[in-house]
Amino acid sequence: MPVIQINCNELTREKKRELVKRITEVSSEIMGLPESTITVLIREFPPEDVGVGGSLLCDRE
Amino acid sequence: MPVIQINCNELTREKKRELVKRITEVSSEIMGLPESTITVLIREFPPEDVGVGGSLLCDRE
Amino acid sequence: MPVIQINCNELTREKKRELVKRITEVSSEIMGLPESTITVLIREFPPEDVGVGGSLLCDRE
Amino acid sequence: MPVIQINCNELTREKKRELVKRITEVSSEIMGLPESTITVLIREFPPEDVGVGGSLLCDRE
Amino acid sequence: MPVIQINCNELTREKKRELVKRITEVSSEIMGLPESTITVLIREFPPEDVGVGGSLLCDRE
Amino acid sequence: MPVIQINCNELTREKKRELVKRITEVSSEIMGLPESTITVLIREFPPEDVGVGGSLLCDRE
Repeated sequence: MPVIQINCNELTREKKRELVKRITEVSSEIMGLPESTITVLIREFPPEDVGVGGSLLCDRE
Repeated sequence: MPVIQINCNELTREKKRELVKRITEVSSEIMGLPESTITVLIREFPPEDVGVGGSLLCDRE
Repeated sequence: MPVIQINCNELTREKKRELVKRITEVSSEIMGLPESTITVLIREFPPEDVGVGGSLLCDRE
Repeated sequence: MPVIQINCNELTREKKRELVKRITEVSSEIMGLPESTITVLIREFPPEDVGVGGSLLCDRE
Repeated sequence: MPVIQINCNELTREKKRELVKRITEVSSEIMGLPESTITVLIREFPPEDVGVGGSLLCDRE
Repeated sequence: MPVIQINCNELTREKKRELVKRITEVSSEIMGLPESTITVLIREFPPEDVGVGGSLLCDRE
């Protein structure tokens, strides 16, 4: 069952692969659950769709 | 108020239409609420953005 | 992979059981995926934590 | 349709009431949609369930 | 920590800028927290991916 | 900005502490971002609120 939703900036496929692998390993180990039960969903946000401290990330770059 | 978020693989418009119709019907019936109060949000994930058992779905195909 | 998040008012265990059963059936049929791949997460909200049209549901009852 | 999910620390009912009222007003005005179409969901997190910078909020207090 | 997720129809960058600014101001004021601690995530949904009352928004236009 | 939402079964405070620490480390390293920018939200679900393969987890125990 664990479902891990990662809201982040845009990533390469290679980084997604590594992120899923290692976050699943860490979660499986700490929660004591088989890796097969863990789902990871990655949602990439362009800077225009993220606000931090009241302004868009794209306006900070 | 019920808000149902469906995280799934890519679907045709026809399948989305049917999914919204029938999930709204089922929810309305079981929760005893009018269909007009039920919102469904569909978020499609390409295989590259989904991890199951530690690997990306796109690497499993 | 499909992960369905249901944000709703408080429900009895029996209603949750029926909701999970039938939403999984409908999703499996329409998406053409085995039921075993479908996860449903139910998040109940007390009326005090839901706003519709600018006011809390608990203030409408 | 707009559904606004607020993940925050624990709030009084009065603060929730004000938050829903004013966030609905702002969203309605900017999006050009009637307030009646806007749903707000508040999810309170105890400090033990929030991590910032690698540590739990409850360990920072 | 407050994380505010806005699920809405497609918006211009200017509207996103204003939405983030004013929702952050309102939340900061009511929650008594610095604006720098508030993250806003905007997820735009095309009408085809939203169901209200059992039908897709794109079928209502 | 990265916001990681962990939907899982009930965990001890010690396990949450370790989960936040190590998931933040992994994410920071892979995304090339400072740990201070990473927020983790933990949402625990009792077995009664989770469905897998069409039945509630509490009915499987």
